[in-house]
Amino acid sequence: MSKGTKRVPVSELRSYAEAVLTAAGTVAADAKVVVDNLLDANLRGVDSHGISRLGIYCKRVELGLVARSTEVTVVRACGIAALVSGNNGSGAVVGVKAMDLAIAKAKEFGIGVGGGKESTHCGTLAYYTSRAVREGLIGFAATNAPSTMPAWGARQPYFGTNPLSYAVPTGNPERPIVFDMATSTVARGKIILAAKIKQSIPEGWALDKNGYPTTDGQAAFEGLMLPVGGHKGSGLALLVEILSGVITGAAIGPQMGHLYGDFAKPQGTGHFFAAMKTDLFLSQEEFQARIDHLCAEIRALPPAPGHQAVLLPGDPERQTKAERLENGIPLSQEVIDELIALGKCYGVDVADYLPKGI
Amino acid sequence: MSKGTKRVPVSELRSYAEAVLTAAGTVAADAKVVVDNLLDANLRGVDSHGISRLGIYCKRVELGLVARSTEVTVVRACGIAALVSGNNGSGAVVGVKAMDLAIAKAKEFGIGVGGGKESTHCGTLAYYTSRAVREGLIGFAATNAPSTMPAWGARQPYFGTNPLSYAVPTGNPERPIVFDMATSTVARGKIILAAKIKQSIPEGWALDKNGYPTTDGQAAFEGLMLPVGGHKGSGLALLVEILSGVITGAAIGPQMGHLYGDFAKPQGTGHFFAAMKTDLFLSQEEFQARIDHLCAEIRALPPAPGHQAVLLPGDPERQTKAERLENGIPLSQEVIDELIALGKCYGVDVADYLPKGI
Repeated sequence: MSKGTKRVPVSELRSYAEAVLTAAGTVAADAKVVVDNLLDANLRGVDSHGISRLGIYCKRVELGLVARSTEVTVVRACGIAALVSGNNGSGAVVGVKAMDLAIAKAKEFGIGVGGGKESTHCGTLAYYTSRAVREGLIGFAATNAPSTMPAWGARQPYFGTNPLSYAVPTGNPERPIVFDMATSTVARGKIILAAKIKQSIPEGWALDKNGYPTTDGQAAFEGLMLPVGGHKGSGLALLVEILSGVITGAAIGPQMGHLYGDFAKPQGTGHFFAAMKTDLFLSQEEFQARIDHLCAEIRALPPAPGHQAVLLPGDPERQTKAERLENGIPLSQEVIDELIALGKCYGVDVADYLPKGI
Repeated sequence: MSKGTKRVPVSELRSYAEAVLTAAGTVAADAKVVVDNLLDANLRGVDSHGISRLGIYCKRVELGLVARSTEVTVVRACGIAALVSGNNGSGAVVGVKAMDLAIAKAKEFGIGVGGGKESTHCGTLAYYTSRAVREGLIGFAATNAPSTMPAWGARQPYFGTNPLSYAVPTGNPERPIVFDMATSTVARGKIILAAKIKQSIPEGWALDKNGYPTTDGQAAFEGLMLPVGGHKGSGLALLVEILSGVITGAAIGPQMGHLYGDFAKPQGTGHFFAAMKTDLFLSQEEFQARIDHLCAEIRALPPAPGHQAVLLPGDPERQTKAERLENGIPLSQEVIDELIALGKCYGVDVADYLPKGI
C-alpha cells in the first residue's frame, strides 16, 4: 500500500545518506563509496538495490558485523590474478578494490581477475563492470549471496540469487552495453510484494516450503525462489558460487550470513571480477566498428507487439539515469519515512540536508 | 509419430559414420574428430546434437561449403590469447584447436583464451570444456549460431541459440561438473528433432514465423526461438555473440549462414574458448577440498517432489553415458533409415558396419 512517491534531488540525498552512514560508524571515505553504489542503483532504476538498503547497512556497522573502516588486504597476487580479503568491511569498497586490481592486470596481460572474500553485500554488479568499461575494457562480475534458492531438483535452499554482470565498451563512451541479472527467475522483492498484497504469482517463480510449485504469493514468500529457466539458472548460479565462493575461499551456500536475518556473524560474501581487453584478437579500430555495427543492427530491429523499441542492456537504465539526474530520485513515502527515522536514530537532522516537504 | 527406437553399438556406429563422412569427402583425421563430437553428444544423452547431424555435415562437405581438409591457421597469438581461422573447415576440428590453444596459454599464464572464426557448426560445447577439465583446468566455451532468436523486444530473429558451457574439475577425475546450455528456452536441435519426427513441443519454446506462439514442431522450425527467461536469456545471447562473433571477426547475427537452409555460402561461425587454473587464488589442495565439499553438500540436499536425487550438471549425462556404452545408443527408426540412406548415397554399405536387423 504505497503512500505515493516524492522526488528527492540526488546531491542532497547523497550528502544526507553519507552523513547518516558516517554517524552509524562508517569512516567518511568508505561511506562515500557505499552511498555512490546505492545511488547508482537508484539512478539506473534498480530501486530494490538503492538507498532503501541504507538502514540495514547502518545496522550491521553499528552491530560490528561490518567494519567501520574497510581494510582491503591483498592476500595473493601473481600474474593475471589477485585475491583480496575485505576483512568484513563494506562490500562496495572491497568490490571496487578487487575490480580495480583486475583492471590493472588486464591492462598489463590482456585479461585480469580479482577475487574477494570476507566481504559483505556489495550492491549491484553493474557498478563494477561499468568501471572496467570506463577504462575501455570488457568487465565481468559475479557474487554469491545468502541462500534462498535451491540447487535444481532440491527442496531446500542452497544458492543465493547469485547475480552476474558484464559490460562492453562501444564506440560511443556514453553508450556502453551494461548487463546485470540475478540467476533467480525474479527478484525476491516481487515475491515479498505479492505476499503483502495477497496476489498470485506466475508459475516458475517459486516453490512452497515443501518443495511444490506454487502460484500463491504467501506460500512463495515462505518457500523458495526458483532459478531462471530451471536447470539453466541453477547451473549459472552454480558457476557464480564456484567463481565467487569456492575458488576465493569465501563462505559458500548456507554458510553465508543473511543480510537481514543473521546478526550473529559477518556475511563472508565472495566476489569474482574480471576485465578483458577488446583487442585481444582484432585491432581496436576493427573491434569498435564491429561492436557499433552490432548495436546499430539490434537497435534497428522491428519491435514486437508491446515493445516500442528494441533496446540493448544499459539503454533503459541510461534513459532513467538522465531523467532522474534532472528530476531527482523518486522515493516512496515509506522509504522516505525510514530514511528520516534513520537520521533521527543516529542524530542526523534531515532538515540540514533535504529540501523542506520531503 | 516415432516408429520406435533400436540400440546401436557405439564402436560400430562410429566406424560407419566415419566411413560415410569420409566417403562424402572429409579427410579421415577430421572425420574422426567430427564423429567423436557427435557420438559424445549421443552418449551424454544430447541426441539433438548427435549422429542425426551426419547428413547435413555430409551435404555441406559435398557442396564445398565445409572444407574437406580443415586447415586451422593461427591468425594472431600474443600472451594469453590466440585467434584461429578455420578456413571454413569442420567446426569440431577448429574448436579442438582453439580450445587446446586456450589450455596451453592457461597453463603458462593462469588464464588463456582461444577465438575461432571462419568456422562451422561445432557440435556441443561440453565436448570442448571437458578437454580443459581433463587438463585440470576450468573451461568456458561459447559459440554463435545461425540467426533464429530475436533480441529481446524484437519480432525478427537476430541471435542464434548461442550456447555457452563451463566445466570444472573436482577431486574425482571421473566426476567433473560439466554444464552446457543454449540461451534459448531449449536447444535448436530439440526443435529440429521435433520437426523431423513430427512431434509437438511445449508452449514457450518458440514462435511461428508470424510471431505467434506455437506447439507445432515444424512451425517452430520455420519460426523464432525464444530466449530463456526473456531479457535475461537475450542478454546472455548478446554476450555470446560479442565474445564469439564480434571480437573474433566471425559472422555476426543474420550474417551467418544457416546450417540447414543456406547452401550459398559457408557459415562463418565464431567460437570463444577460455581455460583457467583452479589455484589462482587458493592452493590446489584447498580448491579441491572446497569444490568437493560443495558437490557433496549439493548432492546431499533433500530432493523436491518429482525428483529422485539432486544432481550436479554432468551427473545425468555421466549416468547416460555409462548405460549407453554398455547397451548401445538408442536411435529412432527415422534416424536409422536416414543413416542407411546416407550410406547408400555415398556408396557405403551399412551391412559392412552395423549389426543385422538395424
